[in-house]
Amino acid sequence: MNVDHAGIATDDADVLAELYTDLFGFEVAHEETFDGMNVVFLDCGESYFELLEPLGGEGAIARYLDRNGPGIHHLALETDDVAAALDRAREHGVELIDDEPRPGAWGHSVAFLHPGSTGGVLIEFVEH
Amino acid sequence: MNVDHAGIATDDADVLAELYTDLFGFEVAHEETFDGMNVVFLDCGESYFELLEPLGGEGAIARYLDRNGPGIHHLALETDDVAAALDRAREHGVELIDDEPRPGAWGHSVAFLHPGSTGGVLIEFVEH
Repeated sequence: MNVDHAGIATDDADVLAELYTDLFGFEVAHEETFDGMNVVFLDCGESYFELLEPLGGEGAIARYLDRNGPGIHHLALETDDVAAALDRAREHGVELIDDEPRPGAWGHSVAFLHPGSTGGVLIEFVEH
Repeated sequence: MNVDHAGIATDDADVLAELYTDLFGFEVAHEETFDGMNVVFLDCGESYFELLEPLGGEGAIARYLDRNGPGIHHLALETDDVAAALDRAREHGVELIDDEPRPGAWGHSVAFLHPGSTGGVLIEFVEH
């Protein structure tokens, strides 16, 4: 599976997007309000940075920011079948956050694995 | 700049490499002892996971594990000129951890930016 994107928790996705485009030559590929967040995807060439800015105090990213401050939140792997990837993880005894695929940002189908089962790394499966 | 790799701090790179190859179809691309660490690069297709396991209690990754436990440590961006990328960051007022390129794992030339200047994300420039 290829890396689809790195998810970044931030207090201001637009400011961070401007910095990263200036510094690293990324381009803004997509922006939307999703699940109470301002979400900006930056095109890095072969993968994306997904900037996640909570618009209120609720939700997983807001809690992450409260606890850890801004930074790398998760890594997403591209698959053409999230349900099959979840089955494979389940067979390996991996604890799942999402038992089945659910709608993610940018119209993707997504599911997360529990970082306690994957070396402390929050892994997301993404199907475009 | 493309994402070259995600750096993962771990207590056991070999166990994590086996899990990730089984779960995600990654392949071990390179393994070495570098700077007091067992370092394993996993080929994800268009980028790598770099698993970093300290072999003693010293060094940045050992300190990271003590403070945060295992997880995503940094994101590395590929460039053909680390020195020029550092100059550009410096011009933008970004605080640098490395003022100039230094030898990294796998024979690469690398330099890190301070996460306080880049939205809490530890960014590494990598030149192959």
